[in-house]
Amino acid sequence: MKETTLKQIAETLGISITTVSKALKNYSDVSPKTKQAVLDLAHSLQYTPNSFAVNLRTKESKTIGLIIPEVVHHFFSSVINGIIAEAEQHGYLVIILQSNESLELEKKQVALLLNKRVDGIIISLSNESNHDAHLKEILQREIPFVQFDKISKLIPSSKVLINDQKAAFEAVEHLILKGCKKIAHIRGPVNPQNAIDRFIGYKKALEQYNIPFDSRLVYTCKNVTFEEGKMFAKEMVSQHPDVDGVFVITDLVAVGVLAYFNEVQIQVPQQIKVIGFSNWFMSQVITPKLSTVDQPSYEMGVTAFNLLLQEIQSKKDSQSFEPQVIELNTKIIERESTL
Amino acid sequence: MKETTLKQIAETLGISITTVSKALKNYSDVSPKTKQAVLDLAHSLQYTPNSFAVNLRTKESKTIGLIIPEVVHHFFSSVINGIIAEAEQHGYLVIILQSNESLELEKKQVALLLNKRVDGIIISLSNESNHDAHLKEILQREIPFVQFDKISKLIPSSKVLINDQKAAFEAVEHLILKGCKKIAHIRGPVNPQNAIDRFIGYKKALEQYNIPFDSRLVYTCKNVTFEEGKMFAKEMVSQHPDVDGVFVITDLVAVGVLAYFNEVQIQVPQQIKVIGFSNWFMSQVITPKLSTVDQPSYEMGVTAFNLLLQEIQSKKDSQSFEPQVIELNTKIIERESTL
Repeated sequence: MKETTLKQIAETLGISITTVSKALKNYSDVSPKTKQAVLDLAHSLQYTPNSFAVNLRTKESKTIGLIIPEVVHHFFSSVINGIIAEAEQHGYLVIILQSNESLELEKKQVALLLNKRVDGIIISLSNESNHDAHLKEILQREIPFVQFDKISKLIPSSKVLINDQKAAFEAVEHLILKGCKKIAHIRGPVNPQNAIDRFIGYKKALEQYNIPFDSRLVYTCKNVTFEEGKMFAKEMVSQHPDVDGVFVITDLVAVGVLAYFNEVQIQVPQQIKVIGFSNWFMSQVITPKLSTVDQPSYEMGVTAFNLLLQEIQSKKDSQSFEPQVIELNTKIIERESTL
Repeated sequence: MKETTLKQIAETLGISITTVSKALKNYSDVSPKTKQAVLDLAHSLQYTPNSFAVNLRTKESKTIGLIIPEVVHHFFSSVINGIIAEAEQHGYLVIILQSNESLELEKKQVALLLNKRVDGIIISLSNESNHDAHLKEILQREIPFVQFDKISKLIPSSKVLINDQKAAFEAVEHLILKGCKKIAHIRGPVNPQNAIDRFIGYKKALEQYNIPFDSRLVYTCKNVTFEEGKMFAKEMVSQHPDVDGVFVITDLVAVGVLAYFNEVQIQVPQQIKVIGFSNWFMSQVITPKLSTVDQPSYEMGVTAFNLLLQEIQSKKDSQSFEPQVIELNTKIIERESTL
């Protein structure tokens, strides 16, 4: 790397390092002529101000960090778009890190963001995250911090959520009201709070309508993929051919379920009704069109950024900030798969 | 921010700043006892080494930057996964920035990455990028640099590509060999080289088979979305009801085309044959299953990272590095939409 230093600039122009530094920061007590000379030389020497040094004055990097588990699900790419659109309007750049559902990587990424001195951090946790020392570290450093979707309940940061229990309850209730008597659940992995809450919602709906809970009807995804949907659909119909309804953790997996049923010509919704979660746009393109729970992903991104910005502002103004928990509304979208 | 400095640690322990700095960098001329004392104090004071300072010795941040236009298309999320998997194996973290197809944002993001002193940069350009001063800046700074998919031909960096002209030629030839006589093209935006090349491939195939080119049969996407696919399909069949084949820039848009044809009950492939590009996994789930060009996205990510790593290594070893252009193979996947 061709790098030069404030010292070289100072020596070349015969001025003090302090003056060079002030000129680069556009301080008013340096003459326009000197400023121009410093900027010209800095430019021709390809000098990059060290981001830390720049921050000493403003204490701002105008950069925020976003850690997400993956980008394959449309939900996350849509949240990202909401965050970026809102951040750009307020002059912030967004550094995205993808934890690939790995706690180890997530910890390194939090350390990197703290090290790179971002103005704030937004996180949706990896499925492995049952450990929160790295999240506490963010709070201890007093870095503005918002969790969304997959969160740690015990960490008192701001949060943007949906009511997963209620949404799942409504999805299963929808199946029951459509006449299903034996309802399976393809659930998410064991750790994430949202998978736990959707499972609880499933159980509560069965209980409310006096349908006995049977743990053999619960299938647990490891990677939450299309392929797992196909696999569990196959397992389910061979083990429990009388299942007449299934509530699936997310649309991508539900589309896998439908793909298997199409392959082996099991009629949906006549033989078995299927409802997904998230309202992925593809869910209305496949045959049969998938019923689902609409989860406001873009809006979740916008809301998360705005909460973070409030905290960044409060910190700048040296005011206290009370973390907020915002719950966004979901709704059942009825399509062909539960008619 | 609660921050402390090397100076505080030095004063507290009654040692020199140099010793503190050496201890934190694990130099061998500091005693294990002193190292431990420094590390313990640094930890309890929540001292973060400034990343720039750390780099003065190793000149490495073990972090690379990735700028991509968007993450909604499965192609990019799959490339990201390839890059991250490979980077992690070699101990690198990946900072992702999404330009949202905006040249203005892309420029800011290049500046940010240079400022944050990443070890290398991988880029796929935004659709607006017809300007390359920011890319030249990366070369001038001698930062290892790889372009992939949407590239600037004139910038002499390493590149990972497919042969878009050839792949598009083969897709259109496939339609012709299946009997299509009047073939439309829903193309990508005007700027990106890959959209230009696919358009050229379309024209060359028509020419080769003596089918006259008609510019009215070419529809140009602005945002490359599912919705644009539906919209152009509608426009196309109302303006040119005798079109019997269509080659679409990417599967997401092609799925929009199929969705419209399903809605208005136009028979695919009987009335009109459709071929997409990229081999998105959803293309085999919809009805009818979509024929497409398989584009090795995950492999593209792996290859891009490895090229970057070679350049990083060469730079570390002060050896010269000749930029490489690697072309990956594509192939036609025949499914129901062109039977």
